Amino acid sequence: MIELYCFGESVTTFKAALPRALAGLAWRPVHVDFFRGGARTPEYRAINPMGEVPALIEGDTVITQSGAIQDWITARTGRFGSQMEAERREVLRWVLWDNSRMSGLAGPRRFLMNFAPEETRHAPVIDWLGGRLAASLSVLDAHLAGRDWIVGEGPTNADLSCCGYLFYSEPFGFDRAAHAAIDAWLDRIAALPGWRHPYDLMDRALPGPAADRRPA
Amino acid sequence: MIELYCFGESVTTFKAALPRALAGLAWRPVHVDFFRGGARTPEYRAINPMGEVPALIEGDTVITQSGAIQDWITARTGRFGSQMEAERREVLRWVLWDNSRMSGLAGPRRFLMNFAPEETRHAPVIDWLGGRLAASLSVLDAHLAGRDWIVGEGPTNADLSCCGYLFYSEPFGFDRAAHAAIDAWLDRIAALPGWRHPYDLMDRALPGPAADRRPA
Repeated sequence: MIELYCFGESVTTFKAALPRALAGLAWRPVHVDFFRGGARTPEYRAINPMGEVPALIEGDTVITQSGAIQDWITARTGRFGSQMEAERREVLRWVLWDNSRMSGLAGPRRFLMNFAPEETRHAPVIDWLGGRLAASLSVLDAHLAGRDWIVGEGPTNADLSCCGYLFYSEPFGFDRAAHAAIDAWLDRIAALPGWRHPYDLMDRALPGPAADRRPA
Repeated sequence: MIELYCFGESVTTFKAALPRALAGLAWRPVHVDFFRGGARTPEYRAINPMGEVPALIEGDTVITQSGAIQDWITARTGRFGSQMEAERREVLRWVLWDNSRMSGLAGPRRFLMNFAPEETRHAPVIDWLGGRLAASLSVLDAHLAGRDWIVGEGPTNADLSCCGYLFYSEPFGFDRAAHAAIDAWLDRIAALPGWRHPYDLMDRALPGPAADRRPA
């Protein structure tokens, strides 16, 4: 049985849980009580010394980093990758881009704006991250104009990486109405069989209003 | 002929130029006058709409993102990857980790501390990046204790990604003396046949003292 150490607010986990759900792969979610130190316990550090969530476990196999878990799901299911060398590399390129230019900015900005202790929410840091994130959203919106998917003719790990933060309702600097091509693309992803909102795929670590479980 | 659009200060380019040099692949470096807008010209945007350096061109093939260029060099030369599925994924995991947790922090911090206009060098941003970077350097140092290479028994793209910033002398928050395992590992990388300092591999966009071309 596949186990995925996760919690609902973790977008990196959603990027791994989403292709699993779309591919119909059975799993057992293992809730990590993140905001009360659940990723810093000796037990969890033994699974992932980087102290990050998610971690996928199957037998002796332990995989961390959402992009590596996506790669494993693709190898297992044949979904969301490409048999063509150039297209496979183009998917990798966008997964890497997401890591540094989308998730690497949206992640800390969303954390600072919604989950961090008040005294650590430094306005200059939030502003700086916001400026860089806005530039990245423009790059993605321009790329998607006139395209259904980021690479090729169907959904790949490029889409399932870059969309991660954009399905969450906590404010972090993304306005769907201002990005028409991204908006239509998110509707296409949410229409894929098996799609579910992150808060329906995984238990939240913090209490939240049911309204946050809005459809895309 | 392989062309690599580059400039010496670009660590992301170094991460692509280094495996090329170690593998002995012939190339023609094309200098990008980055600090005078060389990556924002219509000509360069036609090559890379993301406006980032490096870009590798061979015939009709255009590849951007250092991790994707590394992947291409591995496919071309058989070097720095792995034939084993689990090991190949472990290399990917560290390349992704580098993107978000090392380069994604060291990159903007080094830029703000050394190259950015004075009025944009916000101390809270530099401090915030520094705290996160220090945690990542500890993760890497702990991983390398007792190991020669990040994955497996020889140098891979994991090493050639994570080492990128650490060979540059501009201050950004890394002290070799405080990280014994990283220090020894950098010496191993610099001893590989074909290794050259980034400022010897690529022309700098800014003038700099010869002292910056120090060996590792």
